[in-house]
Amino acid sequence: MVFNIAFIGFGVVGQGLAEILVEQEDLLKKDYSFHFKVVAISDVVKGSVYDENGLDLKELLKLVKETGKIEEYPDGIKGWDSLKTITDTNANMILEVAWTDLKTGEPAITHVKTAINKKKHVVLTNKGPIALAVRELLDLAKQNDVEMRYEGTVLSGTPALNLGLYNLAGAGITKARGIVNGTTNYILTEMEKGLDYEDALKQAQELGYAEADPTADVEGYDALGKIVILANTVMGAKLGKDEPPCEGITKITADDIAKAKEEGYRWKLIAGAEIKADGSVEAYVRPEKIPLEHPLANIMGPTNALTYSTKYLDDVTIVGPGAGKAPTGFALLTDILDINRILGKS
Amino acid sequence: MVFNIAFIGFGVVGQGLAEILVEQEDLLKKDYSFHFKVVAISDVVKGSVYDENGLDLKELLKLVKETGKIEEYPDGIKGWDSLKTITDTNANMILEVAWTDLKTGEPAITHVKTAINKKKHVVLTNKGPIALAVRELLDLAKQNDVEMRYEGTVLSGTPALNLGLYNLAGAGITKARGIVNGTTNYILTEMEKGLDYEDALKQAQELGYAEADPTADVEGYDALGKIVILANTVMGAKLGKDEPPCEGITKITADDIAKAKEEGYRWKLIAGAEIKADGSVEAYVRPEKIPLEHPLANIMGPTNALTYSTKYLDDVTIVGPGAGKAPTGFALLTDILDINRILGKS
Repeated sequence: MVFNIAFIGFGVVGQGLAEILVEQEDLLKKDYSFHFKVVAISDVVKGSVYDENGLDLKELLKLVKETGKIEEYPDGIKGWDSLKTITDTNANMILEVAWTDLKTGEPAITHVKTAINKKKHVVLTNKGPIALAVRELLDLAKQNDVEMRYEGTVLSGTPALNLGLYNLAGAGITKARGIVNGTTNYILTEMEKGLDYEDALKQAQELGYAEADPTADVEGYDALGKIVILANTVMGAKLGKDEPPCEGITKITADDIAKAKEEGYRWKLIAGAEIKADGSVEAYVRPEKIPLEHPLANIMGPTNALTYSTKYLDDVTIVGPGAGKAPTGFALLTDILDINRILGKS
Repeated sequence: MVFNIAFIGFGVVGQGLAEILVEQEDLLKKDYSFHFKVVAISDVVKGSVYDENGLDLKELLKLVKETGKIEEYPDGIKGWDSLKTITDTNANMILEVAWTDLKTGEPAITHVKTAINKKKHVVLTNKGPIALAVRELLDLAKQNDVEMRYEGTVLSGTPALNLGLYNLAGAGITKARGIVNGTTNYILTEMEKGLDYEDALKQAQELGYAEADPTADVEGYDALGKIVILANTVMGAKLGKDEPPCEGITKITADDIAKAKEEGYRWKLIAGAEIKADGSVEAYVRPEKIPLEHPLANIMGPTNALTYSTKYLDDVTIVGPGAGKAPTGFALLTDILDINRILGKS
């Protein structure tokens, strides 16, 4: 089958994927039998364009780079908003990468529901809608016999969710623990080099690892959202977005870090989830002193890592980037190619 | 669809999977829509049994444990050899886990070819046939429109091959490097604790990590077989089994190890493969001094690890067990469930 793709939103992540698609189109066809057209892009700021026969993605990327707009694209229908693009185009795969309110999950939740009800596959990287409504959305996708994927919500394109869902299927996952926030791991790494918290944070902000308001990262809320998504996705949990206990790194001093290292430990912000004897799942985010010989202790800088404990395979750890334009763009691609792998023959 | 499974060979690995299947049957049906019957087992030592309606795997495991034989199983047809079991039973999935000559790849190569020509899916964990003939076998499987999988040949059930083939599809893999032999990594770990090579080897042998003749491990041949399989599978290489340069750990002294550590390094036996600018793939096995802050430096004991370098996702590392009854039994299951995932709906 041919996938007709529509981008809802065309910011950093969407453009990240678009660049990969332009560069790899021939290889994706040849090596992965992935046949696609990008038929629509709708972005609240950059405008929208639809051509049922496919758009020239290279040309569109150039336009956006030069003008910040896509309206000047020479062909196609202009001006369709997100919902009309989802419902009225011939797209059968919707990439939801628009700006979304993390508190309400909107407009992403509405976009996703609309697409699924129209029997269209959905891939997204927005944590908000998934943290808030993953069960409801997955059930809706199942009812409509379409795929919904969101690998990019945890560890960007590093396959944390798909590892647990697919590669470790049947391995008997009992626990997941990891470093799922690169900003705080970068700050802790720099503090070990001698910076105090404020200077390390400032440096992270200058490098683009931390936002102007760093609360979501340093208080652990970003990590909490991710471990809740992971527990609800891989462990069948039904945790609310803000339910598990959460403590960030703001109380850790340079002195704590130096002292731990003398004792053979390293402070890390750990997000964890564990299946209890009664089948319930407990999750948490908290700073922990990890023995230096433990794999998670040696994850430095903005790198992320996640360890699954399993019944048959002991511990399996995946290490990789947790953010970035290309890694998050690739997260969309890994989900798209997996959908193609299981449905492409039909 | 229902998978009718035949075990060709019923040693440690086969029994490892059988135990998982017995324990997880209900969950595999419920959570993964995996419906199966084990219809035949044929083992040169333990005997063979076939029942087109399915065997009682729990009973069979008990029999093997108590008598070392399966011939006393109360029902079914007895005495069919491997080839007759592959060709004449109603099995549509053959698990090739028989003893195989690593030099010739037989009888596994014949088993695999026979199964594929009969349009049966094949899953195996034997390195021999894959290291010797993977391209030919994959081509044959493609011609016959069946699946052939062999995750267990590299890092046992830790998803090294499937990570590269599926999760990192489209990520632009340029390089793979790792610790793919647990025996040598265990020996190097113990030497760092103060043992000399001979004592560390003896300890590895006592623990079952090393064989009486440790040549294949300590000279790097086992690691070489694995990196050749990986390069040929994930990077499209066409390397011969013994083609790349190979150096083991026998020349490393306790003194070398101590000295490296003082300088902030650790000796590891590294297996690597890299795609060159002209598209060719170069592979090697050799001891390398790895900086202590590098993820591979901190993989200790019998644990394995593999780092993929990619264009869009930087480095992604997977860490997990590289051997063992349950991990290798699970390797079969992860392949089986993936086949079910892509074909189960049909």
